[in-house]
Amino acid sequence: MTRPRNDNFLRALLKEPTDHTPVWLMRQAGRYLPEYCETRKRAGSFLNLCKNPALACEVTLQPLARYDLDAAILFSDILTVPDAMGLGLYFAEGEGPKFERPLTEEWAIRDLTAPDPFDHLRYVMDGVSEIRRALAGSVPLIGFSGSPWTLACYMVEGGSSDDYRKVKTMLYDRPDLMHRILSVTADAVVAYLNAQIDSGAQAVMIFDSWGGALSAAAYREFSLAYMQKIVAGLKKEKDGERVPSIVFTKGGGLWIEAIADTGCDAVGLDWTIDIGEARRRVGDRVALQGNLDPNVLFASPEKVAAEAKKVLDSYGSGDTGHVFNLGHGISQFTPPEHVTTLVDTVHAYSRELRR
Amino acid sequence: MTRPRNDNFLRALLKEPTDHTPVWLMRQAGRYLPEYCETRKRAGSFLNLCKNPALACEVTLQPLARYDLDAAILFSDILTVPDAMGLGLYFAEGEGPKFERPLTEEWAIRDLTAPDPFDHLRYVMDGVSEIRRALAGSVPLIGFSGSPWTLACYMVEGGSSDDYRKVKTMLYDRPDLMHRILSVTADAVVAYLNAQIDSGAQAVMIFDSWGGALSAAAYREFSLAYMQKIVAGLKKEKDGERVPSIVFTKGGGLWIEAIADTGCDAVGLDWTIDIGEARRRVGDRVALQGNLDPNVLFASPEKVAAEAKKVLDSYGSGDTGHVFNLGHGISQFTPPEHVTTLVDTVHAYSRELRR
Repeated sequence: MTRPRNDNFLRALLKEPTDHTPVWLMRQAGRYLPEYCETRKRAGSFLNLCKNPALACEVTLQPLARYDLDAAILFSDILTVPDAMGLGLYFAEGEGPKFERPLTEEWAIRDLTAPDPFDHLRYVMDGVSEIRRALAGSVPLIGFSGSPWTLACYMVEGGSSDDYRKVKTMLYDRPDLMHRILSVTADAVVAYLNAQIDSGAQAVMIFDSWGGALSAAAYREFSLAYMQKIVAGLKKEKDGERVPSIVFTKGGGLWIEAIADTGCDAVGLDWTIDIGEARRRVGDRVALQGNLDPNVLFASPEKVAAEAKKVLDSYGSGDTGHVFNLGHGISQFTPPEHVTTLVDTVHAYSRELRR
Repeated sequence: MTRPRNDNFLRALLKEPTDHTPVWLMRQAGRYLPEYCETRKRAGSFLNLCKNPALACEVTLQPLARYDLDAAILFSDILTVPDAMGLGLYFAEGEGPKFERPLTEEWAIRDLTAPDPFDHLRYVMDGVSEIRRALAGSVPLIGFSGSPWTLACYMVEGGSSDDYRKVKTMLYDRPDLMHRILSVTADAVVAYLNAQIDSGAQAVMIFDSWGGALSAAAYREFSLAYMQKIVAGLKKEKDGERVPSIVFTKGGGLWIEAIADTGCDAVGLDWTIDIGEARRRVGDRVALQGNLDPNVLFASPEKVAAEAKKVLDSYGSGDTGHVFNLGHGISQFTPPEHVTTLVDTVHAYSRELRR
């Protein structure tokens, strides 16, 4: 048995009783922390930081030293997978991620293959092992990947996009090519997440950051179907322990029943849906993760505490099945001391609710 | 009686029978049309174009000359209202709208007053009258405004925003100031839309472009409540004819029942919700407007036709209550001839469905 000493996060995902509502924050290791900025400077670039297991481990642990968080999440980037597929990831200063060789030609799409995670993504697996050792059984480690649709957006657009023009033109005009990209990418993600599990990840999360840009029908065909395939292909156990999975589609509030039906253990919620309503809609099938508006953290500590309590109240008095999180990644402009208030409020108030 | 010769748009909004599904497109007078670009060039700037009634009339009519559209919409910008409130609207080349004097100080918020639309926004009313004369009873003219929340986003941020950090900080930290801005702006919008109705607008639409950035609770308190106030304050009749209203929150698919409860005649839908599901959820209370993904227009004409038919099929065989539109403004990169396919398909196929 390899459960960490604080296993509240895993227990909540598996709907086992917990004495408090566990909390972690998307992008908890990030630019709002001065110690992160210092390490990143030392690394020379964001990509060096991702590709150096020792430094990735260092920044993964930083928020845990500051805050009483119930889980660590691997520090990495969702675009490591298309990078390993040969697209050439780079970050132009102040511009966000870009690919040297975006998928524009049919032959390149036909040639796409899923990379061996222990070969081209060895640095991620080394990072997972090193973080796991450094955590020394304290809290669980979350592994993650981007969803095939979200990765395809970057792979076809060549970077971030305001309007998804290129990728949606392909989706509507050449669904055969789109499905080819998604199918290869889904195979790559299954292998990637299973390699993370083998290397020590105790739960995994799929980030579908751009699924919410799709129509209801296109979401099911081009995003959800591939996430379902991934969930079905994931290792369900490691060392005799269940490895729970979380599926998060930003802007997916309309489709949470369908997301719950993928077979995942938990559905991640952005801040636009009321978590109590979400719970009524999905019933007992899955746990829920979320969903405070990250912008709340710009308000005063009193307001931060009040808004956190509203989320806990809305989820209701059940003593499990809820992992507290933001509805999206924490902003680089967040005052670090407001996060202390948030984490401590979630712990104290959820204990109070259980009494 | 002043109904236009083609009154299908008004009939659909009022749930009277129509012989085809009427169609118009958000931002139908825009940069994808070479004739628009030519007029804009002549105007010297986007703002000159908005502020010159003759030129605004000219571009309003351009898409109607090309396509068999069932309605015209006033060419203007949602930010004319805060401009008239003294914030100093300008457009930096290639950067989107900005305000010279964004609302950052408490005294400026306390000093805010609703402008007289026949004074500071006279050019809009002159445009409405001129367009109405030029339409000569052919199709109805739609007037519009931004929602108070959407206008407040620009007024507080000082321009477009990725993260709504400033406006949401105010919302959570100083809800009293936020409500002050929204309340004055709602009064301004009521006066502005009623002045448009008096000047000749035969239907009005409220664009809540950024309501979808709010949490469920914040949406009700800071966006929906003010749109409800506006709908309640709108003139319901002009010259013995009903003046229907449409409320559109982009990203508001989770909240359409509540939007329908504002008292509006129709709910605008973005492309993320299935229109058939939306119809089942709101029942017969309101008409629906939408909701093709604007990116469909980048695909081949065959695909455009196929996707348009899917929307009509999903709405169902009812012969009224649906105004076909995109789920968001048409992209500047749209091939103009694809719009011909779209409009003609909606007309032909919806007639076929009625047989």
